[in-house]
Amino acid sequence: MSKKTTIYDIAKVLNITAATVSRALNNNPRISEDTKKLVQKTAKKLNYKQNSLALALKSGKSKNVGVVLPIINRNLFSNVIRGIEEELNPMGYNVIICQTHDDEKKEADIIQNLLNAQVDGIIMSIARHTKNTEHFEQILKKNIPLIFFDRKIDVKGASSVTLDDFRGAYEATQHLIEQGCTKIAHFTVDRSVEIYRKRYEGYKQALLNNSVVFNEDYVLSLESKIESGKDAAKKLMELDIPPDAIFSASDLGALGAIQYLKGIGVQIPQDFCVVGFSNEPFTQFMELTISTVDQSPLLMGKTAAKVFLEQMNADNLKIERRMVLSPSLKIRKSSSRLDYTPS
Amino acid sequence: MSKKTTIYDIAKVLNITAATVSRALNNNPRISEDTKKLVQKTAKKLNYKQNSLALALKSGKSKNVGVVLPIINRNLFSNVIRGIEEELNPMGYNVIICQTHDDEKKEADIIQNLLNAQVDGIIMSIARHTKNTEHFEQILKKNIPLIFFDRKIDVKGASSVTLDDFRGAYEATQHLIEQGCTKIAHFTVDRSVEIYRKRYEGYKQALLNNSVVFNEDYVLSLESKIESGKDAAKKLMELDIPPDAIFSASDLGALGAIQYLKGIGVQIPQDFCVVGFSNEPFTQFMELTISTVDQSPLLMGKTAAKVFLEQMNADNLKIERRMVLSPSLKIRKSSSRLDYTPS
Repeated sequence: MSKKTTIYDIAKVLNITAATVSRALNNNPRISEDTKKLVQKTAKKLNYKQNSLALALKSGKSKNVGVVLPIINRNLFSNVIRGIEEELNPMGYNVIICQTHDDEKKEADIIQNLLNAQVDGIIMSIARHTKNTEHFEQILKKNIPLIFFDRKIDVKGASSVTLDDFRGAYEATQHLIEQGCTKIAHFTVDRSVEIYRKRYEGYKQALLNNSVVFNEDYVLSLESKIESGKDAAKKLMELDIPPDAIFSASDLGALGAIQYLKGIGVQIPQDFCVVGFSNEPFTQFMELTISTVDQSPLLMGKTAAKVFLEQMNADNLKIERRMVLSPSLKIRKSSSRLDYTPS
Repeated sequence: MSKKTTIYDIAKVLNITAATVSRALNNNPRISEDTKKLVQKTAKKLNYKQNSLALALKSGKSKNVGVVLPIINRNLFSNVIRGIEEELNPMGYNVIICQTHDDEKKEADIIQNLLNAQVDGIIMSIARHTKNTEHFEQILKKNIPLIFFDRKIDVKGASSVTLDDFRGAYEATQHLIEQGCTKIAHFTVDRSVEIYRKRYEGYKQALLNNSVVFNEDYVLSLESKIESGKDAAKKLMELDIPPDAIFSASDLGALGAIQYLKGIGVQIPQDFCVVGFSNEPFTQFMELTISTVDQSPLLMGKTAAKVFLEQMNADNLKIERRMVLSPSLKIRKSSSRLDYTPS
């Protein structure tokens, strides 16, 4: 590979400083038109190519937007990305995706990396245990729009597009009560995370408003995994008074519970109703389709992208938007006790 | 935001050229130790920060690796990414993911963009209809390692890690024959794509080697979608002599077929066997689990990452590797006719 021509080579040929060459190439008004023409001519002759990254460094615009999230293979996240791309690709932006695997240190590294790559904006869902806001403040200090989706943290100057998780959980629980369930359990995930705390609170409030007893023993904290759902369902069924329904904050937890319950001969939905959360595609694929809460991920992504575009087009970058989307309960077989007709 | 200190500011204070400042900061041997110390001291005093991107521009190393693929929410692709990250993150590399949505033009744009961002390597699966190899040659011209996985195209200097799709299809078809199926249909996807062509050829060869009649009418080309699987299964069942098994080149096609067949009362696997391809998680979630071909995506990603690292560590970048992984047939309920015991 032959050595690339640099501004120093041009400077040497013309016997001027590299700074002058750089200013001339960047059309700096301090440089005379004659010098500019001379520099351009020499640059062409020496086959000098201005690096587009170097150009981005100067203009501060790369037309890249970073999307940072815990893990891509979840229905919510992959569809949010699709929504973002559907809005931003036609506007000439490239979307760069990075996974944090819920690791705060990795999240900070990724942000540093994206800032180094001169992204024009960052749209992200935070890692589960992120407490430090320093890496977010760094983004805003550079006047780069920061938009959180789904999992957010409070940072002055950042925008957010989230789901009304409280309402999603409330409606799911209300639905179970309307199906005649009276002993409703809840599978929660790590409640130090806002979205899971809100789902827990929505569940609790629905019980309260309907005068259904809240029982601590019916609330189990587990990972969003099939095996964890199975184990938790087993624990519930071993209680002196087992529940007759589960509202699970995750679809995988709900699936595990259903698999365990079917295995011990419990009839769903006749004897036991289950509702999940996230509308993962598999909830529709099962023979016994699983009721769940849809998070409108495509709309979430599109909305986050629009907030970004709005900030890019605004003279004053200090717009701070808090958008909250409405969930939509998908009632399917796993909780349709009233409509149930044995086939 | 206060104006950032540049090398020009340092140059002005010390009354030397910006080029000298730049060389001093980059430890150029042409600059005296005294000048270097003076520049460093002044840089510190003026709170000058060398941009890490500018550093990357100079060293040509960004510690970023681009992963480019059609779409992230497929079991194969999301797990390949996981495999790549598991190998590269501990080595200090960041992984940047971009989706092409099977659009050749977008693929070329993304590559240009990643090259501008100075990535150290590109690991990718090509868009479905990519015919032009110019954007790949551009990568190699810059001495940047290019490794294809799953979907590749022949480019001199590029490496590849692929699955033996022929063998995967052959084993799936052989398995159906061993279950006693004699009229085996095949759902193929766009056969201008190498992986789908290989699956078709593996299917055909297995029939031939077992003296099972190959029937053109039993081969249907469809998209990898549930609805397409349903429609195709309907067409097959309306034939004068309908088949008794399907080997589908996609899991979603297999799922659609199963849903249609169950809907018209066909007993699976007693009357009809189905095998898919890709080992999507949902194939295990169903009550009637779906037999499928696992593509070892984690290993595929790890192998591609290792090929990249090998090239980074080699003095001669011209290593060209062609690695082919073995598929693994997962036999589940949808095709286990021999072991079937009615419950």
